[in-house]
Formats: sequence, C-alpha cells, structure tokens
Amino acid sequence: MSENARFERWVVLLAGGIGSRFWPASTPRRPKQFLPLASGRPLIVDTAERAMALADASRVLIVAGEHLRAHLEGHLPDFARDQLLLEPQAKGTAPALAWAASEVVARAERPEQAVMVSLNSDHVIRPQDRFVSTLERAIEAAGRSDRLLTIGVQPTRPETGYGYIEVGEPMTPDVFEVRRFVEKPDRDTAEGYLAQGSFLWNSGMFVWRPQVLLAELSAHTPELAGDLQRLSDGDIGGFFANVPTLTIDYGLMERSPNIAVVEAKFDWDDVGAWAALLRVRERDAEGNLLIGAAHAPECRDSLIWAEEGPVVAFGVSDLVIVRASGITFVAPRERALDLKRLLAGLPEELKLGGE
Amino acid sequence: MSENARFERWVVLLAGGIGSRFWPASTPRRPKQFLPLASGRPLIVDTAERAMALADASRVLIVAGEHLRAHLEGHLPDFARDQLLLEPQAKGTAPALAWAASEVVARAERPEQAVMVSLNSDHVIRPQDRFVSTLERAIEAAGRSDRLLTIGVQPTRPETGYGYIEVGEPMTPDVFEVRRFVEKPDRDTAEGYLAQGSFLWNSGMFVWRPQVLLAELSAHTPELAGDLQRLSDGDIGGFFANVPTLTIDYGLMERSPNIAVVEAKFDWDDVGAWAALLRVRERDAEGNLLIGAAHAPECRDSLIWAEEGPVVAFGVSDLVIVRASGITFVAPRERALDLKRLLAGLPEELKLGGE
Repeated sequence: MSENARFERWVVLLAGGIGSRFWPASTPRRPKQFLPLASGRPLIVDTAERAMALADASRVLIVAGEHLRAHLEGHLPDFARDQLLLEPQAKGTAPALAWAASEVVARAERPEQAVMVSLNSDHVIRPQDRFVSTLERAIEAAGRSDRLLTIGVQPTRPETGYGYIEVGEPMTPDVFEVRRFVEKPDRDTAEGYLAQGSFLWNSGMFVWRPQVLLAELSAHTPELAGDLQRLSDGDIGGFFANVPTLTIDYGLMERSPNIAVVEAKFDWDDVGAWAALLRVRERDAEGNLLIGAAHAPECRDSLIWAEEGPVVAFGVSDLVIVRASGITFVAPRERALDLKRLLAGLPEELKLGGE
Repeated sequence: MSENARFERWVVLLAGGIGSRFWPASTPRRPKQFLPLASGRPLIVDTAERAMALADASRVLIVAGEHLRAHLEGHLPDFARDQLLLEPQAKGTAPALAWAASEVVARAERPEQAVMVSLNSDHVIRPQDRFVSTLERAIEAAGRSDRLLTIGVQPTRPETGYGYIEVGEPMTPDVFEVRRFVEKPDRDTAEGYLAQGSFLWNSGMFVWRPQVLLAELSAHTPELAGDLQRLSDGDIGGFFANVPTLTIDYGLMERSPNIAVVEAKFDWDDVGAWAALLRVRERDAEGNLLIGAAHAPECRDSLIWAEEGPVVAFGVSDLVIVRASGITFVAPRERALDLKRLLAGLPEELKLGGE
C-alpha cells in the first residue's frame, strides 16, 4: 500500500438494487445487499469492510435510494450522514457514478491526486487479501494514467447476464488494454467468448480518477454531458430529474477507447439469483443449503431460506423454498432464475412483500 | 323417515383425531375435523349437519378429547354442553363408543327402542340425500335386529389403510351378512379383494342398538367387558383409566359373528392425507388445488394450502405446499402420504405447530 500512498483513495459503494432477484427475501424495501447472503452479515456490511481495507472510512461514499436510508444507517453506523449519497431518483449507474465522482472532486484535499474505486454492494468476494492486492494494482494504474480501469474475472460458464471484456495487449504485467466491452451477449456469443479464452467477465468494479471519469462522460456520453455542470453547481435534484436512465456499461464502457483491465486474483460471484447461493455457500452432505429453522429430511440439492418460522421439506430435490417478507415461495432451482418474469405476472402488493 | 319413526334415533360423532395427517394445518391442538377440507366449513360442521338430518339435534352426542372443548363449542354452538362427551384420556374408538352407547341408554326415553348411528367427524360425504337414504336402511335393519350394522363402500383402489368387509348372503335386498372383517390388509391382499369383487371398504360408520353394542362388547371384547359396569355407575374416569387403547374394528368388528352391512349409495372419502384433497376437491384446469392466497403460475397437479399469508409456487408439479400453524411444509404428493414417518423424526415442538 505504501507505493500508492501518494493517491488520495476514495471508495464508492453502489447500493441501489431494486430487490427482485432474491424475492421474497429481497424486496424493493429490503434489496439484496441487506441480506446475509455470503456470511451471517448483510452483503453491504461485508462490502463496507472491504472498502475500509482500501481507504479510510471517512473516504467511503455510499450511493443509494432515499428509501434505503434507515437500512443504511442501521447496518453501517460507522459512516457519517454526509457519506450517504441518497439519489432523489434511481437513474442507473452512470448518473450515480457521475454524482459520486463530482462529490469526490469536491471533497478531496487534492482532487487531481484522487483515485476512486467503485464497488457493487451485493457481490460475494473472497478472500479479502487477494481482493486488496488486485485492487492495489488497479489503483496504481488508474492513478498514473487517464484510463478507466475495470476489474475482469476469468469466466467459468457462458453466462449471458454479464458484460464481457476482450483483453488486448499488456500495458504493464498486470494491466491490459481492452479491445471491446460487450454487455450481455447471447448464449452462442458467450460460448464463443468462453472458448476463445481472451475474454473476462466485467465484475462491475471500476477504478479511475474522478476527474477522468467526468471528462470521459463529457466526451462519450451525450445523455449526461450537458447536465454534468449541475453536479458541480450542487443542483443534484435537477441533474437526476434531467438525465435518462443509463448504466455505466452501456453509457461509457462500451464507448470509450480508454479502458484498461486488471484481472481479479480473487473469487467473485454476483449471486444474481437464488440458485447462485448453492454455488457460493457451503452445502451439507446431501447438497442442501439450509438457512434459518430449516428441516430437510430425505431432500437433495435444495435451498431453504427459513426466515420466518420453521420450514420443513420432505423428500424434495432441486427446489428453492423461501419464507420471508410474509410470503412463501417455492420453485425448482432452474426456474428461480426466472424471477423477473414471475414477478411481472404477480399482483403488485406481492412484489413488495406480504407484511 | 316415517317408517323408522318408531326408533328413537341418536347420532354419535367421533371427533377424537390426533391431527397428524394434515400436518401442519392439522395439529394435536386443531385436528383435521376442524379444517375446512370438503367445503368452506370445518368437516365437523358438515358432519353435524348430516347428523341432524338423521336425528333431532338434542340427540346428537360428540365424543372428543377435553383439549378440543373450545373448538367444539366454537364450531358447534347449537349443541348443549352435556352433549359433548369429553374423554379424560384418548383410548381409541372401542372405549369411546362403549361410553357413548351407555350414555344413549341412560338418556333415551325408550332405551330398548334406541338406535345409535356412529359417524366419524372427519370424512367427506356427498350427496346428503343419498347418505340419508343409505343410513335410513341401516337404521331400519339395526332397529329390527340384534345386528351390528356397518356401512360398506365399493372400493376403487387397493387401499391398505382401510378395513375390508367380505359381503355374504343377502338378509334383505339392502342388507347383507358379513363373512369377514379384515382391518388394514397388505397390498397384495387388498389387490386380491379388489379383483374378487365381493369386498367393501369399512367406512367407519356404524349403526346399532346401544344395548346390542354393550352386549356384544361384553361377549367378545374381554379388554373392556369387566369395566363396562363403571360406565353405568357413572365412573367415566375409572373406566378410561382402566381400559386399554383399542379400536372398535380390532376389538369387536373382527370378532363378532353378528355383523351386517349396507352398501353406501353415496360418495365417501376419508381424506386420509393431503393427496386425498386432490381427489375430493375440484381442481383448476392445470390440475391444481389452490386454497387461500395461493398463486401457482406454470404449476401442475399441485396442492397449495395458504392459510397464513400468500404462497407463490412457480413452475412446480405434483407438490404439496402448506403454510399453516406457523410452519411451512413442502413435499411431493406421494411423499405427503408418509407424514407419520416424517413427524416421528422432527423436533417435538414442530409437531404441535410453530405458533
């Protein structure tokens, strides 16, 4: 870390999830980052701990919706109120990161020396030491250049829900040019990328100098460029009211020629669905993952999330069973990937949770 | 009915179930007869209505455990307190029916003219007019004879949980001798009975003169015979403390030569397990039976009992899903037959319900 001490390091946690992927345990009122998916603590608490391994706690900013204030204050009591950047409207990651970058510029002692790390608050990452060493390399590279650094993860399956990064020439032993950035390819394309071997998954973790991000947005993101001045003027409400919904992936990473990538040397999982928990958590001898007061005699390869009272499953296989938010949910593992479609067909009040 | 008016008709409802077959909706605190399994009303309310189609409400007696008093008083407000025969201990149907018979003898205006019908309180029976006409035939036959009349049901599957009655020579066009009474045969035997065509299921409904029942118990049931005097003496506590646990099927029906049978002309189901509900209740176009706030998109042939908050199943088949008594239960349809074995392995407090 001493080598990078000349950079003023800031970490931004993106905590704006909408809470449909782990329904009914996650709901708009309690998105996934507030669930204890990786350990006994909510994901966002794990993430904040990782952030504080990279930067001083006073230089951690958290971007989230206003409706999550109580959860954030409850779970993250070590942060001051002004470290919570509460979006007046959810407009996706591009506006959120633009605001965070402008806040870092405004708050930094030496803005030109500031490096900003952006972390999702709802991913599972282990072990911490290898996370830190990977991020140190990216901080070094971002601090010394005008590049947007992304953290790439070696793909292990033809996942169609992620972005893919085509890795180019090495810039240093640890940092590579990025040839292309492809968000959510179709299945055939993803299989091709996997076979080719020169693609990494986009982990959603980025490192850049905030002034570089703002300059890149001005240059490549016309959807926001005209409104960035509002941020420096402190007109946050006007900014969010004016800009369209836009992700940083589509809005900038696919467009900018100045991307570079550092390969993650740690295990990463975005736990994007109930079935993913069976991947990241240790299961019992029968392949079951039992959380809470769950009983599963003669069951196999099933996930039981028993948050509200006992759940007893008998003789089932490959099921996801959830009792949370006043709702009971049962689906085969592979169908639980399809939650968005299920929720679209359910009465509105069920999406919010029954209680 | 006019033809039988010379008999003083009494109906005894047996309401002593222990509540494991529909767990967790049924529990020892709320056995199956208090669940709305056949209609929107508890089975025992349906049964009481049938009883009152056979006898005056004041001549209906209900035998049950003391712990069910509140349920009985709540669901059956039309009966007087002294119509509830609350067993000091549960000892099975033979002692319960002996007590009920002695009460009928004691309360009847003309005991020698009394005919007693015994009905289980947790069966599904339709339609009522054919039930009444069948029972009228049995009342007639029992009133005119010293026979123990049982109501037999044409078997439709090689069920091993029931008793089988081998039908003998006709005594009248409607009433037949009984050659044998076989309780719970094994699968091969049951299949043989079904193929043979001369066996009926024992429905558990009986009709006899109470004095005949008591005489038959004296003659064929040494387990109780020595204690029957306690009943006439009013020493109910002593009777139940002294006698062993014994069913009327094993204790008398398999032993007595004086059994006769009337074939049921109505639909009968003892709804002995969750899966049976899919047999007796109307299902939707996908074969699902949804009770309460149940949602089942892309589901087939599944039963959802949503008593406590919404239950959402997505893309499952042949499952039983129950939310009741503070517990969530999930099992394949065929495994839900095996509840007794499941419950034996669960912590004691779960058997009683979670709330």
